[in-house]
Amino acid sequence: MAPSFVIQKEPLYHPQGQELALYKAAYAARLPVMVKGPTGCGKSRFIEHMAWSLGKPLITVACNEDMTASDLVGRYLLDSKGTQWVDGPLTQAARIGAICYLDEVVEARQDTTVVIHALTDHRRTLPIDKKNEIVQAHPDFQLVISYNPGYQSLMKDLKQSTKQRFVAFDFDYPNASLEAQILKHETGIDDSYASQLVQIAAMARNLKGHGLTEGVSTRLLVYAATLIQNGVSAKEACKMAMVRPITDDQDVRESLHHAIDSVFP
Amino acid sequence: MAPSFVIQKEPLYHPQGQELALYKAAYAARLPVMVKGPTGCGKSRFIEHMAWSLGKPLITVACNEDMTASDLVGRYLLDSKGTQWVDGPLTQAARIGAICYLDEVVEARQDTTVVIHALTDHRRTLPIDKKNEIVQAHPDFQLVISYNPGYQSLMKDLKQSTKQRFVAFDFDYPNASLEAQILKHETGIDDSYASQLVQIAAMARNLKGHGLTEGVSTRLLVYAATLIQNGVSAKEACKMAMVRPITDDQDVRESLHHAIDSVFP
Amino acid sequence: MAPSFVIQKEPLYHPQGQELALYKAAYAARLPVMVKGPTGCGKSRFIEHMAWSLGKPLITVACNEDMTASDLVGRYLLDSKGTQWVDGPLTQAARIGAICYLDEVVEARQDTTVVIHALTDHRRTLPIDKKNEIVQAHPDFQLVISYNPGYQSLMKDLKQSTKQRFVAFDFDYPNASLEAQILKHETGIDDSYASQLVQIAAMARNLKGHGLTEGVSTRLLVYAATLIQNGVSAKEACKMAMVRPITDDQDVRESLHHAIDSVFP
Amino acid sequence: MAPSFVIQKEPLYHPQGQELALYKAAYAARLPVMVKGPTGCGKSRFIEHMAWSLGKPLITVACNEDMTASDLVGRYLLDSKGTQWVDGPLTQAARIGAICYLDEVVEARQDTTVVIHALTDHRRTLPIDKKNEIVQAHPDFQLVISYNPGYQSLMKDLKQSTKQRFVAFDFDYPNASLEAQILKHETGIDDSYASQLVQIAAMARNLKGHGLTEGVSTRLLVYAATLIQNGVSAKEACKMAMVRPITDDQDVRESLHHAIDSVFP
Amino acid sequence: MAPSFVIQKEPLYHPQGQELALYKAAYAARLPVMVKGPTGCGKSRFIEHMAWSLGKPLITVACNEDMTASDLVGRYLLDSKGTQWVDGPLTQAARIGAICYLDEVVEARQDTTVVIHALTDHRRTLPIDKKNEIVQAHPDFQLVISYNPGYQSLMKDLKQSTKQRFVAFDFDYPNASLEAQILKHETGIDDSYASQLVQIAAMARNLKGHGLTEGVSTRLLVYAATLIQNGVSAKEACKMAMVRPITDDQDVRESLHHAIDSVFP
Amino acid sequence: MAPSFVIQKEPLYHPQGQELALYKAAYAARLPVMVKGPTGCGKSRFIEHMAWSLGKPLITVACNEDMTASDLVGRYLLDSKGTQWVDGPLTQAARIGAICYLDEVVEARQDTTVVIHALTDHRRTLPIDKKNEIVQAHPDFQLVISYNPGYQSLMKDLKQSTKQRFVAFDFDYPNASLEAQILKHETGIDDSYASQLVQIAAMARNLKGHGLTEGVSTRLLVYAATLIQNGVSAKEACKMAMVRPITDDQDVRESLHHAIDSVFP
Repeated sequence: MAPSFVIQKEPLYHPQGQELALYKAAYAARLPVMVKGPTGCGKSRFIEHMAWSLGKPLITVACNEDMTASDLVGRYLLDSKGTQWVDGPLTQAARIGAICYLDEVVEARQDTTVVIHALTDHRRTLPIDKKNEIVQAHPDFQLVISYNPGYQSLMKDLKQSTKQRFVAFDFDYPNASLEAQILKHETGIDDSYASQLVQIAAMARNLKGHGLTEGVSTRLLVYAATLIQNGVSAKEACKMAMVRPITDDQDVRESLHHAIDSVFP
Repeated sequence: MAPSFVIQKEPLYHPQGQELALYKAAYAARLPVMVKGPTGCGKSRFIEHMAWSLGKPLITVACNEDMTASDLVGRYLLDSKGTQWVDGPLTQAARIGAICYLDEVVEARQDTTVVIHALTDHRRTLPIDKKNEIVQAHPDFQLVISYNPGYQSLMKDLKQSTKQRFVAFDFDYPNASLEAQILKHETGIDDSYASQLVQIAAMARNLKGHGLTEGVSTRLLVYAATLIQNGVSAKEACKMAMVRPITDDQDVRESLHHAIDSVFP
Repeated sequence: MAPSFVIQKEPLYHPQGQELALYKAAYAARLPVMVKGPTGCGKSRFIEHMAWSLGKPLITVACNEDMTASDLVGRYLLDSKGTQWVDGPLTQAARIGAICYLDEVVEARQDTTVVIHALTDHRRTLPIDKKNEIVQAHPDFQLVISYNPGYQSLMKDLKQSTKQRFVAFDFDYPNASLEAQILKHETGIDDSYASQLVQIAAMARNLKGHGLTEGVSTRLLVYAATLIQNGVSAKEACKMAMVRPITDDQDVRESLHHAIDSVFP
Repeated sequence: MAPSFVIQKEPLYHPQGQELALYKAAYAARLPVMVKGPTGCGKSRFIEHMAWSLGKPLITVACNEDMTASDLVGRYLLDSKGTQWVDGPLTQAARIGAICYLDEVVEARQDTTVVIHALTDHRRTLPIDKKNEIVQAHPDFQLVISYNPGYQSLMKDLKQSTKQRFVAFDFDYPNASLEAQILKHETGIDDSYASQLVQIAAMARNLKGHGLTEGVSTRLLVYAATLIQNGVSAKEACKMAMVRPITDDQDVRESLHHAIDSVFP
Repeated sequence: MAPSFVIQKEPLYHPQGQELALYKAAYAARLPVMVKGPTGCGKSRFIEHMAWSLGKPLITVACNEDMTASDLVGRYLLDSKGTQWVDGPLTQAARIGAICYLDEVVEARQDTTVVIHALTDHRRTLPIDKKNEIVQAHPDFQLVISYNPGYQSLMKDLKQSTKQRFVAFDFDYPNASLEAQILKHETGIDDSYASQLVQIAAMARNLKGHGLTEGVSTRLLVYAATLIQNGVSAKEACKMAMVRPITDDQDVRESLHHAIDSVFP
Repeated sequence: MAPSFVIQKEPLYHPQGQELALYKAAYAARLPVMVKGPTGCGKSRFIEHMAWSLGKPLITVACNEDMTASDLVGRYLLDSKGTQWVDGPLTQAARIGAICYLDEVVEARQDTTVVIHALTDHRRTLPIDKKNEIVQAHPDFQLVISYNPGYQSLMKDLKQSTKQRFVAFDFDYPNASLEAQILKHETGIDDSYASQLVQIAAMARNLKGHGLTEGVSTRLLVYAATLIQNGVSAKEACKMAMVRPITDDQDVRESLHHAIDSVFP
């Protein structure tokens, strides 16, 4: 499937506050955007929703430790006529006027963050040194990065000279009633199960910093609800989706089991 | 032999609990699955059995420290007509609708784990940046990973943003009567030898954390039984299969020898 | 767009002191120049302005950890007729008589700094070992590097044998009235907002060393003003542009919020 | 010389116990074998002898720190018609039904050990990811690895998930009378020299852990005997072969010299 | 410009002692030479002067951390007729009988220093393993290396087996009257400015070890004089050339400013 | 110059003891040889002399940190007809029956030492895994390695499994009268200078372990004598050749200067 990058169908998104309007203001000035928040709280969905809502193509890149600037900008490939340049996703986004979303950008090697500097100041250009070409970004182009503050360490953090190129949005898990509504909407589960699962999640999230490095994401609640809808018992579904994947510590598991038992006695 | 990936013959598997039904529920919703447990307790066999039982092709990848995202996704190879793309095992599984089983996924470099993110959320896509292609996973595709909690260290662990994409199954060694039955079934050894070997294994497993980093796997019991069936004395077979391979510590070896002597006096 | 490197339009630049005349004196003798200062204080704009004002082409290279000497000097690329040499940006600048600006040069690997040695002494040559060629720099060629003293550590610093090849300019944030003028000029914001934002910046900059590794750059003030011009409330704009991007520390955020509240009650 | 891998001439081997029969039992079930023991005690000779005695081809690979999975499995080589696959020694052994002997396997990088997993369980397959091929091992194929317990450190050890795939043999230096017989048989030296050299070796081996990391191997005794047979004095031969190669510590050398002087006064 | 390597114009050089005669004696016997001394004291100029004075070609290589033996010896390059060997600068020097000057040789990787061993003993050969060729050095060939004792650390030093292949010259900054003469000669500055700048340099050099890792080089004095000649005030010129490039420490800067104020009140 | 490897002219060598006869005995049995000793004591000359004296070709390889097994064994090179195998120096030596001398073998990466294992036991073979070829060594082939005990550290040492494959020779600086004779023979210097230089060397060698990591090699004495023969004063020659190259420590230099002054007052 050759990617068109334009999102056809409205992505499910449940706003938590003013973020839709604020993002539109930032996009109107093409300010680079940073979305911050824990795992699975809906950052990627939000960006997909905004791209759909603005009618702009979206190019998403999952960053990783071994990603180099070339993976973003492009590289020469060898074919029968010699070497031929192939644009990377960032270059492509700059040319066609897409929103380019670099997911978990801190994971990438430092050269990838330097490469975005000229795209995120008054120049709005992407220098491709290897081609001796300077790409002037399309007027619709915008850069978005995501950032999980819970992960940053002294060793792995964005440099201030990178951070100070973005306006930022804070994200968190949805509140209880919104989260229950999401579960019902996405899995068809009934009211009582939905609010019970959300109760357990609240208890699990209180363990963050007390044995858990992250709380339980909405995604795992959706998994538990899905298993229940597929005939798994509520207790077993919670263990499979909300306990075993996230910890092997027996004490923390006990605490989570108690939480489950208290809700599904 | 060109691989067909469909398992023709029912793999031997002795269920320890409800895992067959629970896996089917997870597969019905195509939830990504993580199987956890110690070395040689039957995790790989379980997945083979489920693939056979569901009639789906299975693509297994043994992960290792030097494995990169390209090893999973694919790469360009040079031939007489220039470079040509060759799908990696993960891409192939996504295209044909196989169950893709990444064995010991923590061993792989971090970029390999990021590559599975879009395959394990609502998108079910695999972006191949180097080809500017986005593969939409086949409806039958499912991702399974294995994970040995005994090995994880601070340095080498899955990130929460990866863990929270899976439902998980816990595995352990089979109980005594089931394990004896497995020995008899796989090697043809008689009842009394089978239960004696299982007794020794129980004693050896109690040494875990007291000199042994892992207990004795069922596989090693099968080896010991096999050697006995090939004419080796029980004592010598136990030493060859259940002592020497797993430790060079003289004290631990003494303890294991005592265990063997107490069962085969 | 093939780069011409000559800047057509006067870049916005608001002098802070004598730097225009001093730079011209340094350029008259083609002395290599080092510009020092914090993130976003206008170093790059200054060099762009000087290149425009002197009517010389400017070639900018954003340095990074993975940049090697070959990225600056050039490399052989394979095409249908075999390998072919392609000049890197430094070589190109030396040939055409451009000002070559190596932004954040300390980030680059050490071999990149050695490569500039012969260009920055009486020889004014660039040896291209791989071609057995020695490029004699064009009479108009000048080398400029930037350097952020706040970042340097024991591990990453220029060697004295490199430092002692440059004359240096110190930069800092503009003073309050100049900064307010910049905000008005660049975003069209009114006087009172401009001076209020500058007040907040002053308070934020006092937190440097007390929880913040860098002060708030003029760029972030421009972002805040832009958001206000696009209809975002002043408080929200300040949080999006001047708080969330630069810190996740709750105490520092509190201090910044107090500063904002004191100015926009 | 194109290798045939079948050993034509009976390799010299002097059994120390039941190892011939036990190996045959392990081979009958094609169980993977691990041979453990100090440097130069005859591990490699034993495997050569068994391969000869069983009439199976033997492919030996000396493992090292820089060896990767590709060195074992195979790789694509570029020739005039594009890339062409060339089997590595492990693949070749699996195809032709050889005994594949990985000497000092702990030296190899971890990816090489993961590659042998599927060959050492019920699957007996070698997945060649880069070719999308699964090699089903020939019925005669067997994997053997060697392992020197004296070398293992926390940093470099086989994982339990690898160890628990093998049955193991322990080796040590031959006893005095057998070792003297070996010296006579291999060098033609007379009885009295042979037993004198073995006496010195016994004293040197007692220094293990007291300044020597390993004892003196049988091979070095053979060297000393060979030098004596070539006209070197017994004292000088012992110094050349049994002292200088193994230590530079003056105290340990003194102890070894005393041992030599006591036997050759 | 294809390099001829023969220096056409006498390079400016102001002898500090007997070094001209001593170098000629060393060259007469083609002894390898090591020149030691701080940054910017004239080591490179001295070698250029000697090459000019002896009428021999000079090939200079700026060594760096990423330089490998291949960068010195040569490598195969791919062109339309396959791979073709291209001599590196050391090989070229050995063939044509040039003086080969390896500047800051300690920066290079160790394999580059081993490569010069056979060129610096009685063999005077350069083995090119990759070509199976042994280059016998031209009778005029000589090897010269530079070495900055102030930089050496335990981690980065020449091995004794390398050091003991050279005769060595010690260099230091020129004495006051010679340095003033150099300033006048190179920039045309008048007597009083010249001696004032030299006075400041003397004070700055006393700070070495007390906050400065190196003293102020003659080159920086030349820069300051040049700026003065281009109309910059003496104080500003000293700050630009002799303070800001070499330190960001406020205390050290204060000390340097006092020195400047005491000379230019 | 295509290398013939046979040494035409008798290399200067002054025996220190029985080493000529002992080496011949080792060569007669083709025992692998290790020569141990400090820098510049004549190890390489000894091997050259033996190769000349035995009439065998000699292939010398200067080992270094970046040398891999491929540098010794050979590699595929790409030419117009595809890839073509080129033997490395070790393979070439094994084929033509040369003495292969690996100088400073400890410097090489571990894979290079493993590669010599099969060449140094009863097999006398060199497996070339990449070609699937096993080279049976020519009957005249012998392997020689050099080893400087002063350099070895915990990090960099030969493994016992490598050491125990060699017989060893110890070397040291020649005694005073022999060393004086060498100086006279190699430089034509007169008796009194020769014995004076040897006196100084003796004093310098006593500083080993007291500020000097190595003593002064015979080579440096030859350099000093050469400079004197070229008209340099004895004091200056000693400083250039025997002080400055080996230390920058002022105290140690003082001690060496006193030694020189006491001999050349």
